Amino acid sequence: MSTKLKRIAVLTSGGDAPGMNAAIRAVVRSCAYHKLECVGVFRGYEGLIEGDFKDLDARSVKNIINRGGTFLKSARSKGFHTKEGRQKAYDHLKKAQIDALVTIGGDGTFTGAIVFNEEHNFPIVGLPGTIDNDINGTDYTIGYDTALNTVVEAIDKIRDTANSHNRLFLVEVMGRDAGDIALNAGIGAGAEEILIPEQNLGKDRLVDSLKRSKKSGKSSSIVVVAEGDQIGKNIFGLADYIRENLEEYEVKVTVLGHIQRGGAPSCYDRVLASRLGVGAVDALLAGERDVMIGLVHNKVVSVPFKESLKGSNKIDLELIRVADITSI
Amino acid sequence: MSTKLKRIAVLTSGGDAPGMNAAIRAVVRSCAYHKLECVGVFRGYEGLIEGDFKDLDARSVKNIINRGGTFLKSARSKGFHTKEGRQKAYDHLKKAQIDALVTIGGDGTFTGAIVFNEEHNFPIVGLPGTIDNDINGTDYTIGYDTALNTVVEAIDKIRDTANSHNRLFLVEVMGRDAGDIALNAGIGAGAEEILIPEQNLGKDRLVDSLKRSKKSGKSSSIVVVAEGDQIGKNIFGLADYIRENLEEYEVKVTVLGHIQRGGAPSCYDRVLASRLGVGAVDALLAGERDVMIGLVHNKVVSVPFKESLKGSNKIDLELIRVADITSI
Amino acid sequence: MSTKLKRIAVLTSGGDAPGMNAAIRAVVRSCAYHKLECVGVFRGYEGLIEGDFKDLDARSVKNIINRGGTFLKSARSKGFHTKEGRQKAYDHLKKAQIDALVTIGGDGTFTGAIVFNEEHNFPIVGLPGTIDNDINGTDYTIGYDTALNTVVEAIDKIRDTANSHNRLFLVEVMGRDAGDIALNAGIGAGAEEILIPEQNLGKDRLVDSLKRSKKSGKSSSIVVVAEGDQIGKNIFGLADYIRENLEEYEVKVTVLGHIQRGGAPSCYDRVLASRLGVGAVDALLAGERDVMIGLVHNKVVSVPFKESLKGSNKIDLELIRVADITSI
Amino acid sequence: MSTKLKRIAVLTSGGDAPGMNAAIRAVVRSCAYHKLECVGVFRGYEGLIEGDFKDLDARSVKNIINRGGTFLKSARSKGFHTKEGRQKAYDHLKKAQIDALVTIGGDGTFTGAIVFNEEHNFPIVGLPGTIDNDINGTDYTIGYDTALNTVVEAIDKIRDTANSHNRLFLVEVMGRDAGDIALNAGIGAGAEEILIPEQNLGKDRLVDSLKRSKKSGKSSSIVVVAEGDQIGKNIFGLADYIRENLEEYEVKVTVLGHIQRGGAPSCYDRVLASRLGVGAVDALLAGERDVMIGLVHNKVVSVPFKESLKGSNKIDLELIRVADITSI
Repeated sequence: MSTKLKRIAVLTSGGDAPGMNAAIRAVVRSCAYHKLECVGVFRGYEGLIEGDFKDLDARSVKNIINRGGTFLKSARSKGFHTKEGRQKAYDHLKKAQIDALVTIGGDGTFTGAIVFNEEHNFPIVGLPGTIDNDINGTDYTIGYDTALNTVVEAIDKIRDTANSHNRLFLVEVMGRDAGDIALNAGIGAGAEEILIPEQNLGKDRLVDSLKRSKKSGKSSSIVVVAEGDQIGKNIFGLADYIRENLEEYEVKVTVLGHIQRGGAPSCYDRVLASRLGVGAVDALLAGERDVMIGLVHNKVVSVPFKESLKGSNKIDLELIRVADITSI
Repeated sequence: MSTKLKRIAVLTSGGDAPGMNAAIRAVVRSCAYHKLECVGVFRGYEGLIEGDFKDLDARSVKNIINRGGTFLKSARSKGFHTKEGRQKAYDHLKKAQIDALVTIGGDGTFTGAIVFNEEHNFPIVGLPGTIDNDINGTDYTIGYDTALNTVVEAIDKIRDTANSHNRLFLVEVMGRDAGDIALNAGIGAGAEEILIPEQNLGKDRLVDSLKRSKKSGKSSSIVVVAEGDQIGKNIFGLADYIRENLEEYEVKVTVLGHIQRGGAPSCYDRVLASRLGVGAVDALLAGERDVMIGLVHNKVVSVPFKESLKGSNKIDLELIRVADITSI
Repeated sequence: MSTKLKRIAVLTSGGDAPGMNAAIRAVVRSCAYHKLECVGVFRGYEGLIEGDFKDLDARSVKNIINRGGTFLKSARSKGFHTKEGRQKAYDHLKKAQIDALVTIGGDGTFTGAIVFNEEHNFPIVGLPGTIDNDINGTDYTIGYDTALNTVVEAIDKIRDTANSHNRLFLVEVMGRDAGDIALNAGIGAGAEEILIPEQNLGKDRLVDSLKRSKKSGKSSSIVVVAEGDQIGKNIFGLADYIRENLEEYEVKVTVLGHIQRGGAPSCYDRVLASRLGVGAVDALLAGERDVMIGLVHNKVVSVPFKESLKGSNKIDLELIRVADITSI
Repeated sequence: MSTKLKRIAVLTSGGDAPGMNAAIRAVVRSCAYHKLECVGVFRGYEGLIEGDFKDLDARSVKNIINRGGTFLKSARSKGFHTKEGRQKAYDHLKKAQIDALVTIGGDGTFTGAIVFNEEHNFPIVGLPGTIDNDINGTDYTIGYDTALNTVVEAIDKIRDTANSHNRLFLVEVMGRDAGDIALNAGIGAGAEEILIPEQNLGKDRLVDSLKRSKKSGKSSSIVVVAEGDQIGKNIFGLADYIRENLEEYEVKVTVLGHIQRGGAPSCYDRVLASRLGVGAVDALLAGERDVMIGLVHNKVVSVPFKESLKGSNKIDLELIRVADITSI
């Protein structure tokens, strides 16, 4: 198959993540390096269904490595969940004489790729692009490192005002199913407590712990809460509970929200995206398909899409211990 | 009076603002320059009532010019609202042989100073330290410029993801009574619409305007909303209204919250704080009291506290026009 | 004249400055607002000579308000110094049916505009775009505030390592003829000494002062030096002199260089650029020509080009005093 | 031995690196967690020789996780290179009843530890704190990730102005013996060429490559040069050579210098420092000595000091290939 590979399409799908542009750039330039044509697909699978394509050469992707978001835009496509939609996508790919597809996104993106491949036997290679770091088969997803820095910088600012006023701040960070952002950014920001979906600390233990912190001489406290945390219905309800049970602090809530998805990517994410983008084209040239390109132990590897979807619900006990010790 | 000025106290009160540390540093070093003793008061008027003082020399304030918050901490003091509390504060000042006070904060801080002065005839000079820029008699308050940059940087990140997804973002910024942050940061962030307390645009006009924007080819939109905006009960209610009346966009809400109060101060705020801090000691040495030191037309000036409290409910029509034109 | 204004060109010339893109955007969108056509000229006067033009509409300038540099590119044009070159430029303007020109740059840019106007009587309005803040008739030039923040953030980083090692750092900042960047960023960064072109401190006084600082308990020192400072041939020579005469410190040199010209513009620069860009089109519509649009006492004003070139060699004695006092 | 461990000292030595404060904090709090006493040593081995110690408890290290540099200060100690100096250090440790030492630094620091251990059989555990990432036995050194982000952000700013002017910038980054910073930051910044100590590209090939870049349509170029690069005597000589042989560009030089050592640590460096700091106390409690705590494949490990010094002169051929492909 690799002998007839001439024209590769690339798209970004699902929630955007910093470094997606760097990944697109690497795919496009790797195509140029290997004398392959490259086609950008706009708005993810939606653009595939509509045939919203544009030829890209090495100069098309200049000055984007440092930009957040994705210039190909992204979308969640309802149409691609239907057989009819996927057929249209396939027809557009054929019509445009595209031989293979690089798809950058998260688990929804890869699930779509698996189904498409089963129906149409079309060569697809995926890159893990999501801030949530919830993909199996890669140590880091593209965008995760940048999101951690964004969270830590935001909490640094909040700590300025927390310290000035003897306040308790609850800070909600992204992570509906995975506590990776909360746990790592919580350690990095010096949070007193970190609430993650994988572990139910319990409201009472939280309040007890905050009382001890206060007695031990802490004048202010930051609690980092993952979106998917199991305590209380939401962070505002949790704040009310603490207000009722812990009079020592003035309690404030901050929901960091979508600033976590944007921003210039960190050096780590740019290098990761560049390596994986080059790896995607290498894999297609080597005849691989239905795989995700990841980084494991600092080596570029390929794993079957199905492996990548196994999730990683493991709690990293070492990190939880480090969080407990360093917040003493 | 200036002949017997030997010992000056300094405190920060009310909400903290970036640059307060730079202002304290300038007061302390100006005291050292003029061979005056300087005393730091912790936790604003609360520390005055409790006599929570610490002698400060030129080296005590090293490496704080670049730090957000206030190392003297701040608080809102209930006690200082009582005659008894103010008497205790006066007694502590006398006992510590303090001749004059520099108080850094906003309108509440200056109101307290006026009452205290009326009762105890104690020399006080104020510095405008608040991110809200809602003090009369100075073109800028300490912390305002930094807050604008913080807001604009956050919206830059949000725009990355807004652009990638054809979304409408409502971003709430601080400003309960004043739209200065919303209006300036809105222009700076390239917001499509800016909702401020001083002006009631109306929900329908907002939706109409957003529809026009969409038709004109805008793929995403940012609406900046001041806390005190008059549309709807709050930003979440506004989001619901837009969702019901504008189907073209996916609507998301971000409340920037307390990150706006923190962060390393901008160069402008550091220089402003340094100039005003030097000006405060100059004013006390010149026998001034009951005044705030401000910057008007790039000159350090002093204005009576009562003048400073007149607020500034004026709408800057030129800025509103610039916002309208540049968001076309 | 204003009745027949239909088509306006805009260009950036000379050294680039953060906020130039925001200024171009404001000119383009103001044209759209007033139903005027707008034409971008690439590479400053060079592109005028070559007829390197592109029509710009409101959407052409989306997502550039936050970007450093100038998407129209800039250049220093030798050709525009010749009568022949200027004739070609005029011919291209006429051929493209352009009625007026907005030129964004510094003193060289305005000098070119004056000569061009004398020869060809063509309506030109200028905007002050330069990090140096060396233009008369405006309190701030576009890019200056951003450059100050860039310098201060860089020196904050240098101070981390200076403090850790008891070192003396000489930091060279831009400003061949004007010490504004050095003086303001020096105060903002908490520099111990600031060397500016307008004032010759003398090497011996510098060394004496640094010795006193060391004795007074300072463990590290930062000296900010403007490019145009009169001490020594250059900053490396100055470092050698200090090494020979001050054994207490390890002396290091950092030349900040071109990072000072780049970066996302500050909120202040974006708002300034937006206001002046709107003001430029207003001025042309009002029949003004041969003027620069500036900001004086927070009002948009127009001043004849010749006024703007008078420079501002004044030393701000208040700022020098503030620097002396706060570095005690 | 672990049974009698009661009192642990911690110091930072050699060049400072962002995250050293986070590492100290983790050691101090881990001591508090294990009910051990902790003593800070100022100015590295120099403070050991002078007995410059201070008791540290959990609250002593609050609000330092986000600060660059090291609050214990660092130094290069001539005295510790002498038997007499090391004897004094040992005497001070004994007198202060210190049972073990955690030393944070680079290869010079560990070499000192080995010699000290041979002479005095004193338990020492090391942490890799250096921006250079040139230590064997750990995938990352503390400070390296932050330095990469600092370099990339600086080059992003330089690229703004490079793009605006069709310029070639040579940017010198740290790395006398190792090209890790240059190679990774070069890829991250989208550099056209990267010159590292491990590889001699040759001046002619560089100029040829830049000529090709220009012809292929690149309007500006960034070349990242490691300090230890073998081309030319220094970066200014290299610039002259390029000026003589490549007329297409205006050539500019920027030496990033010591800004690379400072700045708030990235989230990655804070988490790394926290994990390794906890690991250091764990290792001492487990009776380990003469080892460095590192991170290998995301696991905390200990390696003998002698292993850590073997350096890592390997060229990462995959990264060089990624750099070549993505800069096409």
